[in-house]
Amino acid sequence: MKEPSDLSILVKNSGEWLKGTGPESDIVISSRIRLARNLAGFPFIKKCSEDDRRKIERQVRTRLEAMSAWKDIQYVHVDTLSEVDRQFLVERQLISREIAEAEGSRAVAIDPGEQYSVMVNEEDHLRIQVMHSGLDLDSAWDQIDRIDDTVEGELLYAFHPKFGYLTACPTNVGTGLRVSVMLHLPGLVITQQIDKVFRSMQRINVTVRGLYGEGSQYTGDFYQVSNQVTLGHTERELLTMVGDEVVPRIIDYERKARDFLMEKGEQDLLDDVSRALGILSTARKISSEETMHYLSKVRLGVNLGLIDDVEVATINKLFIHTQPAHLQKLRGRMLTTSDRHVERANYLHQHLRNGGPADVN
Amino acid sequence: MKEPSDLSILVKNSGEWLKGTGPESDIVISSRIRLARNLAGFPFIKKCSEDDRRKIERQVRTRLEAMSAWKDIQYVHVDTLSEVDRQFLVERQLISREIAEAEGSRAVAIDPGEQYSVMVNEEDHLRIQVMHSGLDLDSAWDQIDRIDDTVEGELLYAFHPKFGYLTACPTNVGTGLRVSVMLHLPGLVITQQIDKVFRSMQRINVTVRGLYGEGSQYTGDFYQVSNQVTLGHTERELLTMVGDEVVPRIIDYERKARDFLMEKGEQDLLDDVSRALGILSTARKISSEETMHYLSKVRLGVNLGLIDDVEVATINKLFIHTQPAHLQKLRGRMLTTSDRHVERANYLHQHLRNGGPADVN
Repeated sequence: MKEPSDLSILVKNSGEWLKGTGPESDIVISSRIRLARNLAGFPFIKKCSEDDRRKIERQVRTRLEAMSAWKDIQYVHVDTLSEVDRQFLVERQLISREIAEAEGSRAVAIDPGEQYSVMVNEEDHLRIQVMHSGLDLDSAWDQIDRIDDTVEGELLYAFHPKFGYLTACPTNVGTGLRVSVMLHLPGLVITQQIDKVFRSMQRINVTVRGLYGEGSQYTGDFYQVSNQVTLGHTERELLTMVGDEVVPRIIDYERKARDFLMEKGEQDLLDDVSRALGILSTARKISSEETMHYLSKVRLGVNLGLIDDVEVATINKLFIHTQPAHLQKLRGRMLTTSDRHVERANYLHQHLRNGGPADVN
Repeated sequence: MKEPSDLSILVKNSGEWLKGTGPESDIVISSRIRLARNLAGFPFIKKCSEDDRRKIERQVRTRLEAMSAWKDIQYVHVDTLSEVDRQFLVERQLISREIAEAEGSRAVAIDPGEQYSVMVNEEDHLRIQVMHSGLDLDSAWDQIDRIDDTVEGELLYAFHPKFGYLTACPTNVGTGLRVSVMLHLPGLVITQQIDKVFRSMQRINVTVRGLYGEGSQYTGDFYQVSNQVTLGHTERELLTMVGDEVVPRIIDYERKARDFLMEKGEQDLLDDVSRALGILSTARKISSEETMHYLSKVRLGVNLGLIDDVEVATINKLFIHTQPAHLQKLRGRMLTTSDRHVERANYLHQHLRNGGPADVN
């Protein structure tokens, strides 16, 4: 395991899950599974003293360090990071906003391909996360189950024979499992069916969030669908509900909406996605919100074959790399909001243009 | 003199006055002079029978035909043209809307470079027009004066020793002269000074119109400044008033507005003009109004050095060639409004793009 002093190794890369190659990847960005785990012999984080937190962090680090399979893992001390570095890891979906904004000893172990990470001292002592491209919950489950077993071989988890894994929040008790699928649903947004679709989901126990979790806006037409509770369900039941029942239905609605748009107004849609690409390629200052809005249209255009020459992987990456902390890490210095608008436009310009339209100074 | 059966020779060309090379051509599109003349021995057009109109047209045509210097002139019978052909000549600034919409025998003689034309049976029996690129009234005057002399050598004009040339409308009696300068004033529009500037002009006898004359909108930030009356003034006085007094003042205001915009917000301006070019290059359907709006921004961008690689001549031409009748002539068939929106976008796409941004189907 490595303990880098900065995040430079992560800055220029992007996660495997962004490559846009998994099943249904025209609509499903990623499949994410996380397990909440706590160590026996310590109180839950909210009740921990800083001394407890330090002990937990040290114990976890020492045990993970011993695992030879984890020799390439980057172990990052979140409490020593600057605000922009923490924000960077949030944007990258490698840590939660909660751990970024928390206090005291805390850390994250990240695999080089960014498929999995383990947060230490988040709401629970351990939060293990696996993220795969497209709709791919089964292989994500296989991977996280193996990781969980390995970690459990080194650490004693708090487990109750009747309730299962004990967690800080009651909604996680049992399996400690959260299954989340990130969907890109511009068709349902354009046809104004998105609210109706999600209202119909409320009866089955799923929650819908934005790109950056609880309370975040549905920017870029991204919707993250997750199970609401876990107690009383097996892992398999939860995976089946989200991955085989809910998500395929939403995918089906989204495909019908896209078909409808293509049949009723292909020229309007072509104009819309083409202008979006034009604006992203030529803007000289642009906000994050506007960027997400137009990238969403371009992504739809690429997926419907209306736009050539732009890879879905490029678009997926741009959604993440044009976020504020990413721009600052890429540029290597702090930037004001208005500097970021210029820097973001430059970054988009470099990644979306092949020489023209007629060049601008 | 040639009497073509259609306008095909004009369709692919564009007027000399659009080349954007004359003095002050960053702001002044064109300098136009027209002379109103009537033949002795005929009533004014409004009082003419169709038989009179035919006689006037025949007499003018026969005399112009005899002039060896006019052997390349295209003589077009406006009354035999389709509506779209008449609209085409209006868009090209070669005939007035009045003659396009009139009835009965009427014609226009057009020089191949489109610097001058002579309308027959407009509001007056003859309307001679000369149009030069940029602010160039003196050479336009020299040319129209020579043409007028040549024509007067062949035809007997209605002339009163005290009042001068007699014309249908009293505002033209005397010299029959109208001096018009077409200005592109985006700086004054963006800084919201345009109304103030033109209010201050009302005290001096000038009229302000849009690109297509009386009653037309100020689309594309074009403003046509002309003398209001001619009676009681010599040609030289009118040329001096418009060309040496009024227009240079407006040019000065416009330059100050542009300087202000560059100093106070170059990045905003760069973003604005760059996006305008992006939209024009990538739209897949676009209205004439939207086109003029964005072309105006691009023209400003080119003139301020914010945009490379696009010639002012190209922009000037696009203002005219994206008009409805032009699109239909270029395409060789009638087009519905929505077909024109698509055709206009294709035309812009072809003329503004050098390969990218990432290509769109």
